[in-house]
Amino acid sequence: MPFFHKHLLGIQDLSKKDILTILETAESMEGISTRDVKKVPVLRGKTIINLFLEPSTRTSSSFELAAKRLSADIINFNRQASSVLKGESLRDTVENLEAMYADAIIIRHTAAGAPHYVSTFCRSHIINAGDGAHEHPTQALLDAYTIKQKKKKFEGLKVVIVGDILHSRVARSNILCLHKLGTHIILSGPPALVPESLEKFKVEVNYDMDRAVEDADVIMMLRIQKERQQKNSYPSIREYRFLYSLTEKKLKKAKKKVIIMHPGPVNKGVELTSDLASSDRSVILKQVENGVSVRMAVLYLLLGGKEREATD
Amino acid sequence: MPFFHKHLLGIQDLSKKDILTILETAESMEGISTRDVKKVPVLRGKTIINLFLEPSTRTSSSFELAAKRLSADIINFNRQASSVLKGESLRDTVENLEAMYADAIIIRHTAAGAPHYVSTFCRSHIINAGDGAHEHPTQALLDAYTIKQKKKKFEGLKVVIVGDILHSRVARSNILCLHKLGTHIILSGPPALVPESLEKFKVEVNYDMDRAVEDADVIMMLRIQKERQQKNSYPSIREYRFLYSLTEKKLKKAKKKVIIMHPGPVNKGVELTSDLASSDRSVILKQVENGVSVRMAVLYLLLGGKEREATD
Amino acid sequence: MPFFHKHLLGIQDLSKKDILTILETAESMEGISTRDVKKVPVLRGKTIINLFLEPSTRTSSSFELAAKRLSADIINFNRQASSVLKGESLRDTVENLEAMYADAIIIRHTAAGAPHYVSTFCRSHIINAGDGAHEHPTQALLDAYTIKQKKKKFEGLKVVIVGDILHSRVARSNILCLHKLGTHIILSGPPALVPESLEKFKVEVNYDMDRAVEDADVIMMLRIQKERQQKNSYPSIREYRFLYSLTEKKLKKAKKKVIIMHPGPVNKGVELTSDLASSDRSVILKQVENGVSVRMAVLYLLLGGKEREATD
Repeated sequence: MPFFHKHLLGIQDLSKKDILTILETAESMEGISTRDVKKVPVLRGKTIINLFLEPSTRTSSSFELAAKRLSADIINFNRQASSVLKGESLRDTVENLEAMYADAIIIRHTAAGAPHYVSTFCRSHIINAGDGAHEHPTQALLDAYTIKQKKKKFEGLKVVIVGDILHSRVARSNILCLHKLGTHIILSGPPALVPESLEKFKVEVNYDMDRAVEDADVIMMLRIQKERQQKNSYPSIREYRFLYSLTEKKLKKAKKKVIIMHPGPVNKGVELTSDLASSDRSVILKQVENGVSVRMAVLYLLLGGKEREATD
Repeated sequence: MPFFHKHLLGIQDLSKKDILTILETAESMEGISTRDVKKVPVLRGKTIINLFLEPSTRTSSSFELAAKRLSADIINFNRQASSVLKGESLRDTVENLEAMYADAIIIRHTAAGAPHYVSTFCRSHIINAGDGAHEHPTQALLDAYTIKQKKKKFEGLKVVIVGDILHSRVARSNILCLHKLGTHIILSGPPALVPESLEKFKVEVNYDMDRAVEDADVIMMLRIQKERQQKNSYPSIREYRFLYSLTEKKLKKAKKKVIIMHPGPVNKGVELTSDLASSDRSVILKQVENGVSVRMAVLYLLLGGKEREATD
Repeated sequence: MPFFHKHLLGIQDLSKKDILTILETAESMEGISTRDVKKVPVLRGKTIINLFLEPSTRTSSSFELAAKRLSADIINFNRQASSVLKGESLRDTVENLEAMYADAIIIRHTAAGAPHYVSTFCRSHIINAGDGAHEHPTQALLDAYTIKQKKKKFEGLKVVIVGDILHSRVARSNILCLHKLGTHIILSGPPALVPESLEKFKVEVNYDMDRAVEDADVIMMLRIQKERQQKNSYPSIREYRFLYSLTEKKLKKAKKKVIIMHPGPVNKGVELTSDLASSDRSVILKQVENGVSVRMAVLYLLLGGKEREATD
């Protein structure tokens, strides 16, 4: 299936067909990572910039590995390097990187909309690796890939997302993605963090987690990000845990073959216990694994690997 | 044209012919960076060390990309890594790096003369990426490359350099380089930062910027580096801007096809306005772009790519 | 000779035959680093993680170069990156890295036993790059390689190790390694730092350095690591230097062709003088050089390079 996008700014811009194309491509990429020589020359001679202006090691390493497995050259610009560039605007930084003949810029930024802004003046491919509370499209794609891998379908599945929906770009991208793929989505969490206005996304909201997880096929726990929460969003971590952490007891109400997801890193004992995180229902490490395949697929589709393969 | 130097320590050591050889080589390197697969195997299996003991991301990334496009392996040692090496002398650090079979060491250091000192005991190729207020030869070479690209010649051109000449290694290397290439050089800036003694370099000094830029073909604005200036070199930033920032009004006195250069990053509103920096007379991003080609040329010529190409 | 280990956790687990296999393999690796194109494709498509949770640049760079010369892809996780992972357990960090299809994880950690712990749940090859005061096996192997290179044998050699034996993983690994290789080992240093209990390792202890070095073939000076020493282990640095620094006078008591070793970086004027460190009896830079060859050998033997070479 062809893929006609220059950038990956958010799930919002993708059709169901686009998403399925990425997932199918990711499947063939997984084949590469499990081979003895896990490297193909399809993006040889391409220059990719990892511009992470918000701290991250998992996502940045996942992209770095994805780029290297496709034989691209990748250069890392982390928060520390960016502090050196202090005083320089985002536009100046990006224009300078692009002037060195960058083919793609992977950008993580604290401000929602930063990747979109950059795409308005750049000729490089822009990939959003997380922008404020807006979107984190590759996370939603790797989550969808993991669900497809375990459940073989999307239609009719009941996916429950639990936690701070309001401030979570992971939740936002997942809601957009799973909605396009036809799953039934239920949101749960403290009322102050799960606004009813979200119902316009055609999702169900249930503040009672015990009832939200009834018959769930997938339970996706979000990471509590203390730094992002406004004061008084919920009484205390202790009360939050009591109401919204995943326990064996709550899990019993879900389907027997339910899978547990989490974008990581898990606050063990807060969102879920260590035992559940490493139980056979947890697919948390599978998500990390699939992250590389999905990011390889995104780089491959955007940077036109297909055409190159023929002539290389 | 053959190139018989082991190191690139400064423009001072290069003949006009050497400089022209580098610029010609850079031209063929530019061809590589604009191809679909921008990578050639000429320095495959060579080990290059990026030893940046003064913070920098632009120059260090530019060298990193240049090395990667020639297929060399490059390892970064930045200021942070160097703090780990604290207590160790520069000689010890370099000897240790070289012991790992480094072919070339690219060094940026706060002390003038550091690359020269290193070259006295190293068998590796040493490349000066900026040493104190002494030289920054690849910057002068990329500036010369940009001027040649836009003006097709050097003889008879009028190049005006404006700012803190006294503390600027960029100015120093450019004066040496453009003088060898036969351009007419005019320096302007506050008297305390543009010593008359510079006239021995056969340059003209004019403290009145309005008159200095008359009929200029090239205006090269230097970056104001607050940390390098001694107190009381000029009354205030406000007065500096009034006298020595580039404005549309001043620009009108230059030739119609004048180009504006700046080594970056620009202090917008100080050395020049945002509008001028992104106008069609500005070649600032072209300089960044050409930096990669010029650095590829330097690495290629020093590390003997020519011979290798034949047997690879 | 075949090599049947999955991990390199310590010298303790290796037989004499294993050690000799590594040294022989290192010899052929040295041949690669001295060629014009110092790169072979034996580990192409392998993913290696450099997980340095204790600051280091020498050892980490040495492994990075070793991996690159074998054409593996290597990703660095340093202390700074690890601070981002704060709150995450070592197990979580490693499981996440491994989920990205890592073939080998090189780990340095402040806690003795960390690499062993990691090896109990990992399917990747684990290489100990220094764990607390426990072991630093590649250092001992490169030291043995250097001794073999200079002395052509191990049996009957008299090797003196001087300094803080108690807290030194370098000493510990070297004692285990040289003991297996049949050298005669003498330890010297302040009594508080050279416990008599070490005599169970069949080593001689002599607190009088002048007598310890008599007829020595090899003198291995350890680095004084102020941060690791408990208070009052010795009266003062001044007294330490007087008693246990290597001087020309002490050196006269050793064999004429004695070699001086040090794992680096040398505290010049403490463990030995600058003059001795750069004299022709010093093999300190040779040790750094041999580090790359030995680490290439370890990576090659563990990651099964042999088989791959045939099919690549």
